Order: sequence, then C-alpha cells, then structure tokens
Amino acid sequence: MSKLKRNERIGAIVKILCDSPNKVFTLNFFTNLFDSAKSTISEDLVIVKKIMEELSLGKVVTIAGAAGGAKYVPMVGKKEKVALIEKICEDIRKPERVMPGKYLYVADILYNPSYTKGIGDIFAERFSDDVLKVDYVLTMETKGIPIAMMTARGLNVPLVIARNENKVTEGSKISINYISGSTGKLQTMYISKNAIKRDSNVLIVDDFMKAGGTAKGMTQLVKEMDAHVAGICVLFDTTQPSQKLVDDYLSLIKYEGINANDEILAHPNYEVLD
Amino acid sequence: MSKLKRNERIGAIVKILCDSPNKVFTLNFFTNLFDSAKSTISEDLVIVKKIMEELSLGKVVTIAGAAGGAKYVPMVGKKEKVALIEKICEDIRKPERVMPGKYLYVADILYNPSYTKGIGDIFAERFSDDVLKVDYVLTMETKGIPIAMMTARGLNVPLVIARNENKVTEGSKISINYISGSTGKLQTMYISKNAIKRDSNVLIVDDFMKAGGTAKGMTQLVKEMDAHVAGICVLFDTTQPSQKLVDDYLSLIKYEGINANDEILAHPNYEVLD
Repeated sequence: MSKLKRNERIGAIVKILCDSPNKVFTLNFFTNLFDSAKSTISEDLVIVKKIMEELSLGKVVTIAGAAGGAKYVPMVGKKEKVALIEKICEDIRKPERVMPGKYLYVADILYNPSYTKGIGDIFAERFSDDVLKVDYVLTMETKGIPIAMMTARGLNVPLVIARNENKVTEGSKISINYISGSTGKLQTMYISKNAIKRDSNVLIVDDFMKAGGTAKGMTQLVKEMDAHVAGICVLFDTTQPSQKLVDDYLSLIKYEGINANDEILAHPNYEVLD
Repeated sequence: MSKLKRNERIGAIVKILCDSPNKVFTLNFFTNLFDSAKSTISEDLVIVKKIMEELSLGKVVTIAGAAGGAKYVPMVGKKEKVALIEKICEDIRKPERVMPGKYLYVADILYNPSYTKGIGDIFAERFSDDVLKVDYVLTMETKGIPIAMMTARGLNVPLVIARNENKVTEGSKISINYISGSTGKLQTMYISKNAIKRDSNVLIVDDFMKAGGTAKGMTQLVKEMDAHVAGICVLFDTTQPSQKLVDDYLSLIKYEGINANDEILAHPNYEVLD
C-alpha cells in the first residue's frame, strides 16, 4: 500500500473508529497501519473530532497517556433524535396496526434496522458515561433483542438475554418468578449462571413497559447475580398505569392506547429527547 | 457551519455512508449538506472508494444517473474474515464451555457485539448482489436474532422473527409444523401474516444447524408466504449428520462435537472464507 494522504487517513480513521463504538484504538495502532508519525495521527484525530461534533455525527474522545488513543462514542444530535422518534411515532400511528382485541402490532418497527441503530445509539449515548461503566446490557426475549443488541454494540459490552424457558442445552441457570404486566400471569425468567459477573453494572433494555413487571423481574435477576442496575431503557411505555413497578426508567415514546375511533395515541417523550 | 475542507467532507461522507449500509445517498444530499458543487462531491467519493478498497474496509458503489449517488456495501477482506472466524473458534474451544450432557455453551459468543457485526457483514456481503435483491432476513427465535439483526442491517432490509408460540397480541399468523433437529420434537413456528410480502426474496439466518429441521421449517414458512428463499446462512453447523434436511447453505464454522477428552472440535470452514 502506498502512503496515504491526510484525507485518505481521515476517511479510514472514521470508518475504523465508528465500526467499533466505545473501543479504544491506540495511536500506535494507527501509526503502524498508516506508517505515519504520532504527531501526524494526532492532527488527524483533531480533524476527525471536529467533523463529528460539527455535523452531530457522534463524539470522538481522545485519551492521553501511554495507553492513550481514541474512541468513538455514539451521540445523536437533538434534532436527529427528535426526527427519528417522530418518524417512529408516525409509523406507529398507521391504522392497519390495530389488531383484534385493540392490540398494537409493532414487531416490524422493533426489527427495522433503520430504527434500531438510532434507538440503540440514543440509549448507548445516555449510558456512555465513564464514571458508571456499564458492563452488560440485559433484555428479556424476544422483541426487545434487536434494540438491546444495538445498545450493547454502541456501548461495546456483551448482551445477555433472559429466557422464558430453561433450556437444558445451556447449563446451570439463575431464575426468578415475576408477574407479567401485560398478561397478569406468573412467569419465570432464566439466565445462565455465569452470564453476569458479580459487582458489575447492568443496563436493562426492553421494547415496551406497561406495569413494569418484566423490568422489575430483570432488576431482581440482576440482584440475584450480586450485580447493580445501571438503568432501565424502553422504547415505549404506556401512560396507564402511571405508577410502574420500577421507579426510574427512560422511555422514548409515550403510548396512551387506541381510542374509540381506533386512533392510535403515541407521541415522542420530548422531555427525555432534550 | 463554516464551509468544510476536503478532508472534513471525506470524514463525514464515510460516517454517513457506513452508518446506513446499502442505502443510497444522492449527490444532492451531499451537495446540500456541504454546500458544495456536484463535481467536488464526485471527487470526494472517488477518494472514499479508494480508501475503502485499499484498506479492505468495505465497498463504496457509485450509482450514475438522475437517481444516482453512492452507497456503502459491507465487504470483509479475506484476511479479516479468516481472523474473525479463527478468533471465534478459539473462543468456542474454551474447556469451560462444555456443559453437563456434552452440550456446548455459546450464547455469549452469539451475543457478543465484537463478533456479531463481522458475522452479519460476512453474510450481508455474500447476499449484497443487486441481481437477486434480498427483501427480508428471517430467523427463528432466540439465539440467532443478534446475527440475523446485523445481517439485516448490513443489507438494509427488515428482519422477521419466527416465534415458537402464537402471541395473541400480534394478530393473524401463518404457522408450520417442523421437527427440531436438536430435540427431535415436533414443534410449531409462527410469523405474522403480513410480515413477508408475496414474491419477495428471503434470506434465512440462524446460529446453528444440526439436522437442518429449523432451517427447513423456515423455508416452508417462506413458501407458505409465496415468497422465495434467497439463501440460508448459519454461524456453525455440525459435521454429523452430513446429510442435512436443506440442500444448500452457508456455514462459517464446522463443529464436530466434544471428544472423549472433553476437547471441543470446532474449526473455520475455510472453503467459504475464500
């Protein structure tokens, strides 16, 4: 490979950093890759940092010292955040989503890659704080998995999936019983015994919160592992019941239900998008 | 925003294209964003294309004409592919993965964001062919969802998840019965009636194939929807039985089982990594 020019190095640095959010790449990594001096790479990084900020494309953090380098942290500009959540709400309000029994069909929204990355980035940004380092993202199968996966990717931490059945093929489990808010039934959730390390910080991510039974179940599971809940994020929650089984959580969309005219009442939770 | 320099525009173009694989961005989009002439942006794109190729970071395809522009297509260099799959195999071979009953614990591998993106990119690259455009990625819950999500993201198409229960909250379903290869039991899989459009091309993605029962079930589901199977991708398959229930599939890792000394026999499927 011939020696790259500045603009070529910058393109490559952006790609490499953004492909692995929250992963630190050392200056040495780049000096070897490009056969360039440290001072040159440092100047490149200043430019990369500036573009990201100016265009609200994310944040590049440079780390000084021997183990120093740079990492990309997902960051979604306020305008982009609001636009994404408004677009999802518009999609949610499509009349054909009303199912018999006044249930709302949203699976396609939860599995749509043009939404999931943005949602994951919003959650990851909120918890990319270096003071309280998130060690795992935990979700309960099935519909929350894609956004939980994207959040885990944004934070560069493992995803853990709680199951509703004890699969014999997966070794010892920790289980807890919980009351599902949507069905009112007593259910059990399982995770592998070694999936979460003691004293780690766990971010809970799910698609939907009604009474908060599943989220509460996951917080209990985290406590069973002697770990800590770093936060709870859901894509949307219902306005009723207003009192949930968990105290503190982040929801991007408020869902009021389907009214007598079959209109779907869902709107962005602007408070948290600021 | 002050007018950006070439190296700044290039950094931004790389970020924007790579954030949305397989999505076409028009020249107009970039000329508006940067307040630059088309000829300038075209020159920028030539540089972006060159860096991606030289450093095996992916492929940038430029599209001529009125609806023209550029898109990023995931592409993993041969060396990087082999390195990733070898690293996953090394991880798989850790002795502590052997569970009672000689089952292999791999959930953490399937949910690890530093693996899932690469796996999804490898599958997406293989099926990013414009002749046979993939319209959906289909997987069966639960463990294949993260890699299926990353494949869907790479291809910029919706993910569809087949469920093993008929959730009343999700409207009408299409279901088929199938024999699970791993348990030998008759099971049912369900997808929402409108999840897949008639005549579309569906890429099936799953974590693991033993006899191929689940994959065959998914192909039947696709046929029930009057759609076509574009291909079947799994992260790993067993060497036994050598005759699977589906004819043609792509597997990245060959798994021979756990021998009498509790050694885990798994190796990259080098044939397909070329």
